[in-house]
Amino acid sequence: MSFISVSDFEAALWTLVAPDEASRAAAAARQAQLTKPAGSLGRLEDIALFFAAWQGRERPALNHGRAVVFAGNHGVTAHGISAYPAEVTAQMVANFKAGGAAINALAGAAMLELKVVSLDLDRPTADFTAAPAMTEIECLAAMTAGAETVEAGLDVLVIGEMGIGNSTSAAALCSRSFGGDAQTWVGPGTGVNAEGVRRKIAVVDAAMRFHADAPHTAFETLCRVGGREHAAMAGAVLRARQLRVPVILDGFICCAALAPLVRANPAVLTHCIAGHCSAEPGHARLLEQFGLPPLLSLGMRLGEGSGAAVAAALVRSALLAHANMATYGEAGVANS
Amino acid sequence: MSFISVSDFEAALWTLVAPDEASRAAAAARQAQLTKPAGSLGRLEDIALFFAAWQGRERPALNHGRAVVFAGNHGVTAHGISAYPAEVTAQMVANFKAGGAAINALAGAAMLELKVVSLDLDRPTADFTAAPAMTEIECLAAMTAGAETVEAGLDVLVIGEMGIGNSTSAAALCSRSFGGDAQTWVGPGTGVNAEGVRRKIAVVDAAMRFHADAPHTAFETLCRVGGREHAAMAGAVLRARQLRVPVILDGFICCAALAPLVRANPAVLTHCIAGHCSAEPGHARLLEQFGLPPLLSLGMRLGEGSGAAVAAALVRSALLAHANMATYGEAGVANS
Repeated sequence: MSFISVSDFEAALWTLVAPDEASRAAAAARQAQLTKPAGSLGRLEDIALFFAAWQGRERPALNHGRAVVFAGNHGVTAHGISAYPAEVTAQMVANFKAGGAAINALAGAAMLELKVVSLDLDRPTADFTAAPAMTEIECLAAMTAGAETVEAGLDVLVIGEMGIGNSTSAAALCSRSFGGDAQTWVGPGTGVNAEGVRRKIAVVDAAMRFHADAPHTAFETLCRVGGREHAAMAGAVLRARQLRVPVILDGFICCAALAPLVRANPAVLTHCIAGHCSAEPGHARLLEQFGLPPLLSLGMRLGEGSGAAVAAALVRSALLAHANMATYGEAGVANS
Repeated sequence: MSFISVSDFEAALWTLVAPDEASRAAAAARQAQLTKPAGSLGRLEDIALFFAAWQGRERPALNHGRAVVFAGNHGVTAHGISAYPAEVTAQMVANFKAGGAAINALAGAAMLELKVVSLDLDRPTADFTAAPAMTEIECLAAMTAGAETVEAGLDVLVIGEMGIGNSTSAAALCSRSFGGDAQTWVGPGTGVNAEGVRRKIAVVDAAMRFHADAPHTAFETLCRVGGREHAAMAGAVLRARQLRVPVILDGFICCAALAPLVRANPAVLTHCIAGHCSAEPGHARLLEQFGLPPLLSLGMRLGEGSGAAVAAALVRSALLAHANMATYGEAGVANS
């Protein structure tokens, strides 16, 4: 599908497909018969029911999962807000394609197919302290690029990103979506020092002032302070919802892309699970706003979909237990 | 190796092999060159260094991992302290052997070989409210059975257990090892109700009184209130240390087996990581005593090594990232 106009985006945001409650119930009935005390697999049981409902089957599986990394460049890097030069975005895309990045290994470990989507790296977004980051057309194009990575029948979608400067953009998305000053949402990102954090805060403060009078709709917020990779992740998540493809969210930047959507329609992420809580301080706050408890909390802060991919390996374990365990009857074990 | 006498146990407990610090340093040097900001993989990086040190190589792997489930029966079940009849221990062993239990699926997902060791199920331990649970010879035999499941060259050992009644025994092991009354260490186990918890507390209280004057050595505590599966897990962990095989610990009952050892020699578990923190309330307390932060916290409370096996899948992801990522030089990416 394409996001041709803003109304396509609005339709996707407000017309939310429901999960298959019959499959969830069938999975719960099966779970009650498996050879284990009720509830003893903890969150693994919740995961099995969640995937049953979204995949629409009693025994969900991860045979055909996909991780997508969206890459974009940011005019705001002119303010010296990253520990890395902007060229690293393209260099890391080459690394993804050559198989040498963390996400290559982690997607492989979780048996996910990996797609890499470069979003006009030679055309950074505008410096959003002085202009909207993207035009309406640019934002829609990025959303479409995101949506096109999702197809019916995917068992899971893991989304991630790469983009030097994009944690500053992410903080701005959060501040415009949920309030809180720049300091609330800015963190060290890939690892800037205290002076770098101060520069990030100043940039986000300036952006909040510059765009203060712009409408606080989800689309406008993405155009104003988002990056192409943020818009693409938003498009991918909305498309996944239309196709009932369950999504595993990654870290702060991934979740920040969805903050404007959640602010508009809090039900928009019910097909998503939070793969992990990252070390970036704003992430825990954001997950609280989303009402999504993270599966993992490992102090990761790399992006690329890396935390979500690790969580996907855990989801695979949960679904294999649900699908392959014997029932009390099959195994001849006495129930309590 | 065999534990022929108590002095074999004491030797294993007090003569602890050190990890290979040269391999840890080599792995750290490699990690500093990988295409990611320093520290950005969080605990995945700690895991890679830990396994490098214990496996003795710069790029540790999980090609040959093993999960072992030890099963034992308990005379103390006569007090009605479990939601399940004692026959379920043998029924679940049959389920493990037929491939129908949670640990079968979870070990499979983590690509671990699964071994099941039945420890004289037809000879339950004595009711430890009125006698030592095991004789010295019985305890040594169980330790030997545990040790024999470990061999040089294993990339990881996951230990777990099955034994109706063994969370009561576990609470007694903790109370004798670290103090705290029965209430501190008793929980619902597989899911007994409030009345069942009261019975468990009464049993542990009675046991603490009965054995109050017995020596508080690790071996004596295991004989007095442990089960065969506890002794076997202790033997396996000590043997793994001799062979530098890293171990992933499971839940409350698994950790309780090691409480007497840690009380005697706090360094005994430096080759172990805590796979998860279970829902059994005593487990978090025990991990604090051990100084081991859990990798996962998913509300699991099944035993069988299930939580440790899920953690092993996560360890696999960590080691694949460490082994397969490109360095900055290899990938032509600019470092910060």
